[in-house]
Amino acid sequence: MELVNEMIKNYPADLDGIDQEKLARCIRECLSCAQACTACADACLGEEDVAALVNCVRTNLDCADICFATGQVLSRHTGYDAAITRGMLEVCATACRACAELCEGHAAMEHCAQCAQECRICEQVCRELLATLG
Amino acid sequence: MELVNEMIKNYPADLDGIDQEKLARCIRECLSCAQACTACADACLGEEDVAALVNCVRTNLDCADICFATGQVLSRHTGYDAAITRGMLEVCATACRACAELCEGHAAMEHCAQCAQECRICEQVCRELLATLG
Amino acid sequence: MELVNEMIKNYPADLDGIDQEKLARCIRECLSCAQACTACADACLGEEDVAALVNCVRTNLDCADICFATGQVLSRHTGYDAAITRGMLEVCATACRACAELCEGHAAMEHCAQCAQECRICEQVCRELLATLG
Amino acid sequence: MELVNEMIKNYPADLDGIDQEKLARCIRECLSCAQACTACADACLGEEDVAALVNCVRTNLDCADICFATGQVLSRHTGYDAAITRGMLEVCATACRACAELCEGHAAMEHCAQCAQECRICEQVCRELLATLG
Repeated sequence: MELVNEMIKNYPADLDGIDQEKLARCIRECLSCAQACTACADACLGEEDVAALVNCVRTNLDCADICFATGQVLSRHTGYDAAITRGMLEVCATACRACAELCEGHAAMEHCAQCAQECRICEQVCRELLATLG
Repeated sequence: MELVNEMIKNYPADLDGIDQEKLARCIRECLSCAQACTACADACLGEEDVAALVNCVRTNLDCADICFATGQVLSRHTGYDAAITRGMLEVCATACRACAELCEGHAAMEHCAQCAQECRICEQVCRELLATLG
Repeated sequence: MELVNEMIKNYPADLDGIDQEKLARCIRECLSCAQACTACADACLGEEDVAALVNCVRTNLDCADICFATGQVLSRHTGYDAAITRGMLEVCATACRACAELCEGHAAMEHCAQCAQECRICEQVCRELLATLG
Repeated sequence: MELVNEMIKNYPADLDGIDQEKLARCIRECLSCAQACTACADACLGEEDVAALVNCVRTNLDCADICFATGQVLSRHTGYDAAITRGMLEVCATACRACAELCEGHAAMEHCAQCAQECRICEQVCRELLATLG
């Protein structure tokens, strides 16, 4: 996924002093977290005791949708609108935290443990990028 | 799209006093606005003077992604998390307003005029649903 | 959702003799089916016997993703590529049929009955549009 | 993105002899290609001569939507349906090839050159996974 960094460098206009390394990191974690949440929701469906995991599945699905949408918004630079970017980073951090908390509640299942870890990373990286946006 | 209302009624558990009519309306407008924004971005690409419309295209694309994600979150009731729902409704209203303002700037093009109108409706409906969430 | 038809008419170039009514109908059903499948997956998670419904949830999730993507592709006319459109309509019909068959297996649940009905409509409308593409 | 492999290993049931390394590779390339296409569409919008690139933008947008949806379908194992998986892999390969061909036509722009390269990889990896599905 070094290609994420390359595509940022290839943008034909100035990126107004944004921290490109933090931006690339955030896009990568949004994609990785979206995939992990999709896979964790599905792994929960494969567990015998799925009935105990339905809130986890739902939050995984929300988190996946929101992480994907955030990654998309962050991948665009033309006509940058700080309010949209900030709003998405904030709700993405909110969703990642909620999903991490639910998954940590069943961390005996390795898919939840690893998904929670990725959600914590993605939440933190979203907050770090937010902090650089001023 | 009356099916949206039906699916809400079919949910097997209590929906905790949410205004089902406002919820259904908001889901419908999120889907309709996402489609209009996708189509408006594409119609802009079909205009001779596309170079003057690139900020509009980009904001259309963001708005479409965010409206779709918001519609998805609103379509789920299991394990409801008010912070995620509120965050998505807020960023959706922000994106719809930004897109409406850009499209209103080229309302001589009918696709922008109609997309702007739909974005204004979707923004308002998101804010109305937000107001009922307490 | 009459706006779908309006946005097609507003496209600034010729649409090469495509049946605009069938196209609009197909876009509307793709969106409606995507939403119904998202809601049905969530309603299944709200059922006491969710363990019996996990294959239905998974197929609902696939069908929702594929219907959304198909609606997006159909909403664009610039640089039309018949092979992509045909491929998406075919896999959308395949997913809708699979989802309908699973949901019909639990049609005592109203959410599955209505989702199955919508999937059957969407499958048929995709096949009808495919037939007009020559 | 080693997490993709981990999440496959964490699935609680048997994966029926699927080549897990090829599956993980394909999910990663679908995500990477979706992101590259989103970024390439946006970089095209940032070019002075965007009017010459509108077909490229549109195909990038389709390819991004289809790659994301394919990555989602491949990330689920519960209730596996070979026809849906095969259909998505086929249309994904079709979209990636179309996008690669368009981007190769403007490979003097580094974003198109790198996007084309990623699309070629993703097309090949989709076809390799298809070949293992029997």
